[in-house]
Amino acid sequence: MHQRLSFLAAFTLCGMTSALAMAQPTTSTSPAPAQVTPAGNDAAKRPNMIVIFCDDLGYGDLACYGNPTIATPNLDQMAAEGMKFTQFYSAAPVCTPSRAALMTGRLPLRNGMCSNRRRVLFPDSKGGLQAEEVTIAEVLQANGYATACVGKWHLGHLPQYAPTQHGFDSYFGIPYSNDMDRVASAPKGRASFADPKVEYWNVPLLRNGEVIEQPADQRTITRRYTEEAVEFITQHQKQPFFLYLPHSMPHVPLFRSAEFEGRSKRGLFGDVIEEIDWSVGRIMETLESLKLDEQTLVFFTSDNGPWLIFNEQGGSAGPLRDGKGSTWEGGMREPALAWWPGTIKPGSVSRDVASTMDLLATACTLAGAKLPGDRVLDSYDLTPVLLGTGESGRELLFYYRGYNLMAVRKGPWKMHLMTQDAYGAGARQPVKQDPPVLYHLEHDPSERSNVAEAHPEVIKAMLADIEVHKKDLVPAESQLER
Amino acid sequence: MHQRLSFLAAFTLCGMTSALAMAQPTTSTSPAPAQVTPAGNDAAKRPNMIVIFCDDLGYGDLACYGNPTIATPNLDQMAAEGMKFTQFYSAAPVCTPSRAALMTGRLPLRNGMCSNRRRVLFPDSKGGLQAEEVTIAEVLQANGYATACVGKWHLGHLPQYAPTQHGFDSYFGIPYSNDMDRVASAPKGRASFADPKVEYWNVPLLRNGEVIEQPADQRTITRRYTEEAVEFITQHQKQPFFLYLPHSMPHVPLFRSAEFEGRSKRGLFGDVIEEIDWSVGRIMETLESLKLDEQTLVFFTSDNGPWLIFNEQGGSAGPLRDGKGSTWEGGMREPALAWWPGTIKPGSVSRDVASTMDLLATACTLAGAKLPGDRVLDSYDLTPVLLGTGESGRELLFYYRGYNLMAVRKGPWKMHLMTQDAYGAGARQPVKQDPPVLYHLEHDPSERSNVAEAHPEVIKAMLADIEVHKKDLVPAESQLER
Repeated sequence: MHQRLSFLAAFTLCGMTSALAMAQPTTSTSPAPAQVTPAGNDAAKRPNMIVIFCDDLGYGDLACYGNPTIATPNLDQMAAEGMKFTQFYSAAPVCTPSRAALMTGRLPLRNGMCSNRRRVLFPDSKGGLQAEEVTIAEVLQANGYATACVGKWHLGHLPQYAPTQHGFDSYFGIPYSNDMDRVASAPKGRASFADPKVEYWNVPLLRNGEVIEQPADQRTITRRYTEEAVEFITQHQKQPFFLYLPHSMPHVPLFRSAEFEGRSKRGLFGDVIEEIDWSVGRIMETLESLKLDEQTLVFFTSDNGPWLIFNEQGGSAGPLRDGKGSTWEGGMREPALAWWPGTIKPGSVSRDVASTMDLLATACTLAGAKLPGDRVLDSYDLTPVLLGTGESGRELLFYYRGYNLMAVRKGPWKMHLMTQDAYGAGARQPVKQDPPVLYHLEHDPSERSNVAEAHPEVIKAMLADIEVHKKDLVPAESQLER
Repeated sequence: MHQRLSFLAAFTLCGMTSALAMAQPTTSTSPAPAQVTPAGNDAAKRPNMIVIFCDDLGYGDLACYGNPTIATPNLDQMAAEGMKFTQFYSAAPVCTPSRAALMTGRLPLRNGMCSNRRRVLFPDSKGGLQAEEVTIAEVLQANGYATACVGKWHLGHLPQYAPTQHGFDSYFGIPYSNDMDRVASAPKGRASFADPKVEYWNVPLLRNGEVIEQPADQRTITRRYTEEAVEFITQHQKQPFFLYLPHSMPHVPLFRSAEFEGRSKRGLFGDVIEEIDWSVGRIMETLESLKLDEQTLVFFTSDNGPWLIFNEQGGSAGPLRDGKGSTWEGGMREPALAWWPGTIKPGSVSRDVASTMDLLATACTLAGAKLPGDRVLDSYDLTPVLLGTGESGRELLFYYRGYNLMAVRKGPWKMHLMTQDAYGAGARQPVKQDPPVLYHLEHDPSERSNVAEAHPEVIKAMLADIEVHKKDLVPAESQLER
């Protein structure tokens, strides 16, 4: 069923020889920049990159991750023809910090996109991603890539923070979450989500800097994002491109096109996921029909875990504990699929620990671009993992909630210094864990059995790792509190 | 990636035309017996049947059901080439009743293999499956099938209850659970499971009626079951056969062969599952090499959910609530895979509600055999589901704990009349739920949101269904209390 790539095949596809040979692991303490491959004659041969990013999708919400009633044949096919990650993380358990970290390859507290008081940006916020931050889009744009952002931005809605200020040639989408700016006449509290109407939320739809629709018709938004994405791909067949496609869904309020109404056994939430699955299928079909599939890395994941307080309208973290907002596994571990026919071995499973922050270093390697070498990065090149030739070099994963370091993962071990439930009464304050709580995540992914007493040496080593981590940690001023 | 069977192909394979055309749904109130296809000239063309039955495997323990760290490439391949069920149930949340129901297609309380005091049979039990019960093996044996039971029986260890008294030509395996008859010198309580040694349990290994090893060397038991199974298949290429392969694992104490030690990222439990996965691969390979694969239905599932109190040594129910012993979903919903190349559409997913009890009626249809027509059955023919031509006709699923009807499922709805946790302090007594608790399992598989108040009409209808169900219910005397 599976076919292994020959060594030769892996190194001659897509003109990647030089870029891959020069790829270096990056570390947060001493980033080793990848060598530059000048954008020149072979620019057209460098692989395209598409990042499809869901909003509040849980670890257990796809059929290929064990969901019993949501049908995701296109995503299942993506897994069967590509790589499925089982220990892949977003960089934060909520939206804005998670997106900032993906874009910059840096922890949210390094770039200021976090806070202990305001979890995300709101329509009244004055802050946003700062100009001095370097995004994936900027790196790729500077290296000859066409770039587009289609979807939810949420890194600042004021003009100076727009996607087009951060490396994207074009932008089509909504500036913040689809549940923001609820109108006064809408039903209060959860009632507006139970039977959502487009007019309850005054969210604008933008094309580049211009509001083209307000409120955005969210019923057709997944379809329209998809059409924009297909159009962008079709228009840029000759030039390497980077498409960032952050869906607004399945964040509540849930909306889907008429043709997906009542489609799923899972109800409204399932309909929404099945439309996203359709969208992924359209992207794959488009690449295949344009013969770009062997020249394009498609990466699918989400910004944080499921919003469990919304019950049937929220997703599922599968076997993982808690959800969105929490640094238990359910808050940050995500479905993640990588598809690149001819390069990634079909049906492969990566059980490596990896992060959305790693996409920056990966993009640099693919493009033969230089890493932003003047700053501390938290990004590890995933190309060895994707090609099946090695590991990314990531040893540690840090779980932050705002500015609080809640937990650390090293190999199979996760040590909680503080715990706090996602939402509800138990979530008011973090609970300090002293001594720390320890789980062996590979044996116990549901974080049920604290094994701290049996492994004092692990705790000691991880506490020392934290001291090293703190040395290069200079928290930036919060943009979310402005 | 997928290929659909043509109508013609489905009906000309394996000489099944007549049997399938005559298949009838069976109901518990009025079983409609399938017509007899005499075992005659075409006997050799009737499909073989292999049932691989695990012990305490949870819904979340296979990679194809979302497990993050257990590698099950052969079971994943079985799913990719066959059918994966996502709403498939064992007939009871513990071992003996579950096995009795699979064998007879009848609820445990109809055949006496249940109790409210002793959950399963023990080495001092005097009871067992009664001679008047009709098993799958008896039906198939009477219709010209060679039959073998290889593995854990647990339906009575006294000679009159042996597999060879219930339709099996031969038997190789252990008579009850692998944690029974612990020797006095073994460490007490859980300590004997933490670092298990073969000599802690005095479990016998039998060939037909004879004890050939005591204590059974459990380290090699999965391998030896596999070798026996392969030998049986190889010896019966010319005659239709039925192989029942109930593994002793992954019931604690956990043992695996030397070559699987330290194999899995999931630790000891993962090693054990990965050896079972290897075993499944050996069965599939054997069928393929003998060119019997297109003539054999292989069905893989388990007897009940994971034994959660054993922490890392127990499995995972994935997104489902609770585990072994409980009538929450985690106790009874199981991974279930059906593989029959050329007949079952590759990569298909069945979200139909089905039960281990349905294997009896399915076997009858495949063999062109008559259903036991003189008794109430709880078995619904699954061949329309397997062939993709229709549904099984099952409308209701009953969740019993001993003689207590705890819950009922109808379509997506599950109504709990009583709840009781699996183990621990909260498990002492069932809690009557009046009014009943209601979950929409297709929207809410984790049983988190009680929606009873919003759906009084569903509760009313299901209470009426229970009255009908009770009319043909004559509980047999308990065999477990003897």
